[in-house]
Amino acid sequence: MFGRFRYNNEVFYGELKEDTVISQESTFMEYDLSELEVLPPSSPSKIVCVGLNYHDHAKELGLNVPEEPILFIKPPSALIGQHGKILYPRNSNRVDFEAELAVIIGKKCKSIAYDRAYDVIAGFTCFNDVTARDLQQKDGQWTRAKGFDTFAPLGPFITPAKDFNPEDAAIRSRVNGELRQDSNISNLIFDVPYLIEFISGVMTLEVGDVIATGTPPGVAELHTGDTVEIEIEGIGTLINEVA
Amino acid sequence: MFGRFRYNNEVFYGELKEDTVISQESTFMEYDLSELEVLPPSSPSKIVCVGLNYHDHAKELGLNVPEEPILFIKPPSALIGQHGKILYPRNSNRVDFEAELAVIIGKKCKSIAYDRAYDVIAGFTCFNDVTARDLQQKDGQWTRAKGFDTFAPLGPFITPAKDFNPEDAAIRSRVNGELRQDSNISNLIFDVPYLIEFISGVMTLEVGDVIATGTPPGVAELHTGDTVEIEIEGIGTLINEVA
Repeated sequence: MFGRFRYNNEVFYGELKEDTVISQESTFMEYDLSELEVLPPSSPSKIVCVGLNYHDHAKELGLNVPEEPILFIKPPSALIGQHGKILYPRNSNRVDFEAELAVIIGKKCKSIAYDRAYDVIAGFTCFNDVTARDLQQKDGQWTRAKGFDTFAPLGPFITPAKDFNPEDAAIRSRVNGELRQDSNISNLIFDVPYLIEFISGVMTLEVGDVIATGTPPGVAELHTGDTVEIEIEGIGTLINEVA
Repeated sequence: MFGRFRYNNEVFYGELKEDTVISQESTFMEYDLSELEVLPPSSPSKIVCVGLNYHDHAKELGLNVPEEPILFIKPPSALIGQHGKILYPRNSNRVDFEAELAVIIGKKCKSIAYDRAYDVIAGFTCFNDVTARDLQQKDGQWTRAKGFDTFAPLGPFITPAKDFNPEDAAIRSRVNGELRQDSNISNLIFDVPYLIEFISGVMTLEVGDVIATGTPPGVAELHTGDTVEIEIEGIGTLINEVA
C-alpha cells in the first residue's frame, strides 16, 4: 500500500509495510506510521466524478440506466485525508455521504482504449463524494454542492492495481458504526476500463488524477459529530468526522 | 502586463513592456517577445466558471435573473494560450465560443468579504468558454461539454488589477473578423467582488486560480478553420483557430 505523508514540513510519498513507512523520495528513510501525518494519498490536478453508476442504485430510484456516464469535477481544494474533518457549510441543511471507489491515474494519458486502461492505473482507494443535497437540487449544476472545502475525503492508502480486482469487491459505508451502504463494485454500470476510455477521450489525465466511480444505494444525511466510514474490500476504511 | 512564457525548456512568468519580456524568476533576464512561446498567463489549480451572468443575455433568452450564481469547473487540462488551437471533438456537432472576462487570483484565500475582494485579485484577462452545445444539452451537467482539452483559451496577458476597471470595459468577440458579441462588463448580474465572495465562501482559492465571469449575448457556433477573437478593452485580444 502507498500513501502520502507529512513529517514536520516535509511531504512525501511512501510505501506502507505494516506500521512502517518507507519514503519513496530520494532518501528511502523509514518512519513509524505513528510519527507521521497521513495526507490524502494523491495530489490530483483534478477529481473527475461520475453520476448514477450502480445498477442497484438506478433500480432503487426507478431510473433508467444512463446511456453514457454523467461527469462532474471536484476541485483539489476539497480534498481531505484519513481523519480529516468534514466541515458542514452554513448555507446547507442537508449534507450526504456517498461511498465510492476511486481510481488513481499513474501515467499522463489521452484517449486510452478500453483494453489498455489498466496500463494507466496506479491503484485504487476509497472516496467519499460528500454532497450538499439541498444545494445540488437548487442549483441544477452539481459543482457548488459537491465542491465545498473538505467534501472530497480520499484514502486512507492506495492499493496498487495489481493487488486489487475492480470487478469484485465489497463496498460499504457506516455512520457511527451503523451500516448504511452495502454493495459490490460488480454492480457498476460503467466499469473502470469504460470510464478510463470515456473520460480520457474528453480530457488529458495527469499522474495522480482521481476518478470517482459513483455510489451504490443507501446514501443518507450526516449531522455534526457523526463519524462516517467508507470501506472497500482489499483497500481499507476511510474514516472522517463531521464538524 | 504579465504573462507566462517558454524559452527552450524553461517556463517562466514575465512582465511585458512593449516587445520586451522581463523574466520575473530569479534571473530578471530580458527577452524579445518574438523569441518566446506565449503560454496561458496563469497555471491554475482550478478554473471556476459562472453560468448566465449578463443582464442583456438573460433578457435575450427571456430568462429571469438567477438568484445566485451557477458554478461549474473546467479542468486545467483544457487550457490553451494565445494562438493555441481549439480542437473540435469527434463526438460533437456543435461547438460554440463564449467571450468572458477572467479574474486571476493573487492570494490563497477563503471566505473573502465583498469589500475585501480586490485584496486577492492579481489581475484580469480574456477567456473563451468553449462549449460543445449538443453535449451540454444531452448531459444536463456541463462538465463534459466544457471540459475537452483546448476548451479553455486564456490570455494573451494579464492586466494588473490596479490598471483595469471591471465595472466598465467593452467585451467583444469576432469570428473570422466578423463581430458576434458586443457588450460591456457593466452588464454583469453578479459583479466581480460578489463572485469572489460567493466562490471563496465555497472553496479555498489558490494563487493563479481563474474565475470566468460568464458571457454576454450573441454566442454562436464555430467551424473547423475559423479564427475566434475575444477582445476586452484595457486587456487585449485572445486569438485562437479551430482545428
